Amino acid sequence: MSLLVVGSVALDTVETPFGEVKDALGGSAVYISTCAGFFTAPVRLVGVVGGDFLEEHVQFLESRHIDLDGLQVMKEGKTFRWGGRYHYDLNVRDTLFTQLNVFEHFDPKIPEGYRASGYVCLGNIDPILQRQVLSQINKPRLVVGDTMNYWIETKPKELAETMKTMDVLIVNDSEARLLTHEPNLIKAAKRIIRMGPKVVIIKKGEHGATLVTDDTIFAAPAYPLENIFDPTGAGDSFAGGFIGWLARTDDLSPDNLKRAVIYGSTLASFCVEKFSIDGLKDLSYLKIHDRFRSFMDLSRFDER
Amino acid sequence: MSLLVVGSVALDTVETPFGEVKDALGGSAVYISTCAGFFTAPVRLVGVVGGDFLEEHVQFLESRHIDLDGLQVMKEGKTFRWGGRYHYDLNVRDTLFTQLNVFEHFDPKIPEGYRASGYVCLGNIDPILQRQVLSQINKPRLVVGDTMNYWIETKPKELAETMKTMDVLIVNDSEARLLTHEPNLIKAAKRIIRMGPKVVIIKKGEHGATLVTDDTIFAAPAYPLENIFDPTGAGDSFAGGFIGWLARTDDLSPDNLKRAVIYGSTLASFCVEKFSIDGLKDLSYLKIHDRFRSFMDLSRFDER
Repeated sequence: MSLLVVGSVALDTVETPFGEVKDALGGSAVYISTCAGFFTAPVRLVGVVGGDFLEEHVQFLESRHIDLDGLQVMKEGKTFRWGGRYHYDLNVRDTLFTQLNVFEHFDPKIPEGYRASGYVCLGNIDPILQRQVLSQINKPRLVVGDTMNYWIETKPKELAETMKTMDVLIVNDSEARLLTHEPNLIKAAKRIIRMGPKVVIIKKGEHGATLVTDDTIFAAPAYPLENIFDPTGAGDSFAGGFIGWLARTDDLSPDNLKRAVIYGSTLASFCVEKFSIDGLKDLSYLKIHDRFRSFMDLSRFDER
Repeated sequence: MSLLVVGSVALDTVETPFGEVKDALGGSAVYISTCAGFFTAPVRLVGVVGGDFLEEHVQFLESRHIDLDGLQVMKEGKTFRWGGRYHYDLNVRDTLFTQLNVFEHFDPKIPEGYRASGYVCLGNIDPILQRQVLSQINKPRLVVGDTMNYWIETKPKELAETMKTMDVLIVNDSEARLLTHEPNLIKAAKRIIRMGPKVVIIKKGEHGATLVTDDTIFAAPAYPLENIFDPTGAGDSFAGGFIGWLARTDDLSPDNLKRAVIYGSTLASFCVEKFSIDGLKDLSYLKIHDRFRSFMDLSRFDER
């Protein structure tokens, strides 16, 4: 089924103890679309870039069957840039700079042909813009949304309003705690459900992800990687794999939501194995499916 | 098969945001033996208490078919006491006091009748004492050992020597990192395997536990509890459930090690639901098995 992705398109400068990249293609809409593109096509991308956005990036996205009719190009402006540094313990990261540039006044316009999208993924942008996107779309079958500490702290009321329109909220553990003032993650997830979303997914980095609905809890492990090169984009890759699988299968049963979590975890695991989107470049549906099966071996046990 | 447990017997004073207990029965040997006792009997306990150790505690342990021939009573001394306070976020704990008392000069003597124990669980005590215990035992089928930051930091060489005699090392994530100077937990586990143990289990509290061998990785979730009253003893309960199941079944295959990890996680989940050992008091093998099956539902998924 058709999938619409809205979020940032960025040029990332990243330093880790294992190397660095400058102005690499990134941003939530790029990671989500690229990952979802392994499952369903075309993925409709809505975002904004400046006149400095390289043709090679456009070509890469097009090669992934990502529909760029919704990508605004502000020729006079510059593309959103983010710089970060990861420590030896990759759970710790410093933001070195954030240059919003054209993203500062991003006004997501949904092309006419996108309005009937069945699946919508709202990347981590201002909750007001997230709602603005939804107001331009015919009633979608599933809305998946992301958010972050910044919006939880600065626009709690707007976010609460937007959350009422989401079917699935994907957050990490610290965001779930911040949003609910509740240290217990299961309680936090249940509070979030009372705020609107029917499904909450709490990402826990190296500890995996937990899906919570009114009557289901599913604990997915993280793939045990010995070498993680760059955690940038892992959360967005998770969201892309998750919604990509659902858009492909158009099955929202609890069992299929669980599979979607594992596909999300699978894409996140490939993402962090290389810098920027490099870990997603030479990926295939077959490799993805192989790793999906490794996840089975990882967590399966039986009775005696 | 016969099981020997060596560790501390303590009186714990614990404060949490939900209440407090004073001089409650605790200590690694008590939690391990009580939990293992649901699977196999008798469990042979080696430890030391003072003249102030209440008859009701002795009666409780005996009611669990724990053999106390190896429990030394130093009538002139006082029992080891520990006091701690947990914060609202139960992952954070302050030690309020540690009174070693008779435990300071604990000299574990293995009764003649214990020397042929097939399964041995070395609770978290001085690595020199752990080795001293093993030197008194005929070649056991499996040695499971625990340790802590304190020994890793103060007796690294002694600990390294003792680890060579262990088949399974159970540590938490921060201990694994401290022991190996490696932030990646999978790499840390593999380094530990090169130090001696054939099996490493890394406990991650609310994030579950990971079992690593030379050729297997198994990720077990934690049971999703909304109400955790007192985390004291969770790690020892895990060890008790783990070795108890193995001693019962005497099967060291990878599949059975995985089941043992789930039984360990099951016992830990019951332990933290009430104060002190109260969560283990009204437990039955049937309740344990029911929760084991809930763990299946929690992590199971299939292909489409």
